[in-house]
Amino acid sequence: MKILIVYAHPEPRSLNGSLRDRMVATLAAAGHEVLVSDLYAEGWKAALDGADFPAEPAGARLEVVAASHRAFAEGTQTADVAREQRRLLWADAVILQFPLWWFSMPAIMKGWVERVFAHGFAYGVGEHSDRRWGDRYGEGVFAGKRAMLVVTAGGWAEHYEERGINGPIDDLLFPIQHGILFYPGFSVMEPFVVYRADRMDAERFHDVTGELDRRLAGLFVEAPISFRPQNAGDYEIPSMRLKDGLERAGLQGLRLHRR
Amino acid sequence: MKILIVYAHPEPRSLNGSLRDRMVATLAAAGHEVLVSDLYAEGWKAALDGADFPAEPAGARLEVVAASHRAFAEGTQTADVAREQRRLLWADAVILQFPLWWFSMPAIMKGWVERVFAHGFAYGVGEHSDRRWGDRYGEGVFAGKRAMLVVTAGGWAEHYEERGINGPIDDLLFPIQHGILFYPGFSVMEPFVVYRADRMDAERFHDVTGELDRRLAGLFVEAPISFRPQNAGDYEIPSMRLKDGLERAGLQGLRLHRR
Repeated sequence: MKILIVYAHPEPRSLNGSLRDRMVATLAAAGHEVLVSDLYAEGWKAALDGADFPAEPAGARLEVVAASHRAFAEGTQTADVAREQRRLLWADAVILQFPLWWFSMPAIMKGWVERVFAHGFAYGVGEHSDRRWGDRYGEGVFAGKRAMLVVTAGGWAEHYEERGINGPIDDLLFPIQHGILFYPGFSVMEPFVVYRADRMDAERFHDVTGELDRRLAGLFVEAPISFRPQNAGDYEIPSMRLKDGLERAGLQGLRLHRR
Repeated sequence: MKILIVYAHPEPRSLNGSLRDRMVATLAAAGHEVLVSDLYAEGWKAALDGADFPAEPAGARLEVVAASHRAFAEGTQTADVAREQRRLLWADAVILQFPLWWFSMPAIMKGWVERVFAHGFAYGVGEHSDRRWGDRYGEGVFAGKRAMLVVTAGGWAEHYEERGINGPIDDLLFPIQHGILFYPGFSVMEPFVVYRADRMDAERFHDVTGELDRRLAGLFVEAPISFRPQNAGDYEIPSMRLKDGLERAGLQGLRLHRR
């Protein structure tokens, strides 16, 4: 299979760099084709701005959604954005790898999402009617592809557990896993998270990479997170409210949106 | 009082630009001093990288936390970062204003957080013992200051309500409001969110700005979000797990961390 790793860490001699190298080696040894978008090494432009839409008239007011739509539809996107879109379409699975900075992805990767996930490509697609609300949340350009986060965090695992002060890791990652990956159609695998990443020794690294290898072996085998598809009957249209009674009695919070 | 608006939108002739101008005018008319950090206009460097630590030895392996600590402690940060830290220390309240892109802040503002919230300044401060786990979550450099998000979203309000498909807006903003603002000590006000921001007419704009004026009038008066402080007895140390029985019976999810 074909796998794209989108990687965001400024230092190749980091734990993240080592984990990326391990993933490339493990996936290649299993017969997969692997491409790496190394955002820092490639000098990825992080901030979405008017320079992303070179065909817009000079001095025109920038309306981001409309400009993104035109640039994608008319083939006037910048070369780096078009290349990343081709890589995404090529891939059977996409791995986003990053250190958790301030409880989310680094800015450079957020900017990759903002610039590459164009209107008409990753959002703003499909029919809006009384039966559908566009192709999103389980449908869309990436339907049939898998995605997984590989994340390092400085904090303790306990602090990210169900009652941990940081909030459960699944809830912290919901805007990414549900809002960025499931939205344009990816099947999202459970994340691979390394805690206390700044306290790594040879023994832990051995254990962590062994577990990472196991997760990669399951990338096309394990069941993805059971996020509810939007247009399969679980949500009212157009309020997009989860219908009453579908969840286990008493369940609250973001887990409502898993089956 | 002194108010810093950190503003991230690439087009001044946008709804966000109009809301920012309105805030500046309303706050000035009420006798406040206002500063705006206009990240796009100032060409803010979005990605944290080695260039942020010019005193590190050339070719040395970049360890972000350690390099950030040294640069802050030794006064070798870049001028833009030091200026933003001074503005934050000057302010009695900080407003982060941005369009919600892919369910979070734009990359350029995330990079503002990553670069300005240095180790030894906004994190990595305070005593770690069996009574405390550093000065964070309600304590820290910004204790006594208020913070508020002013956000525009393209989607419908219903889609961000309790059972809405996007997830409740409070949960989507938790990594920012709790993880970025409450963490270094801010008292965080309820957010001001404008939905369907691309469907604005004169009547709605009148209503929205009227409500925004009311929220600004309450900035130092209304009660902040009742996030639980870390070191006041609600959490076990060092697991940082919320003690049993503190919440309303049956409550689940991120709301556990509100009193």
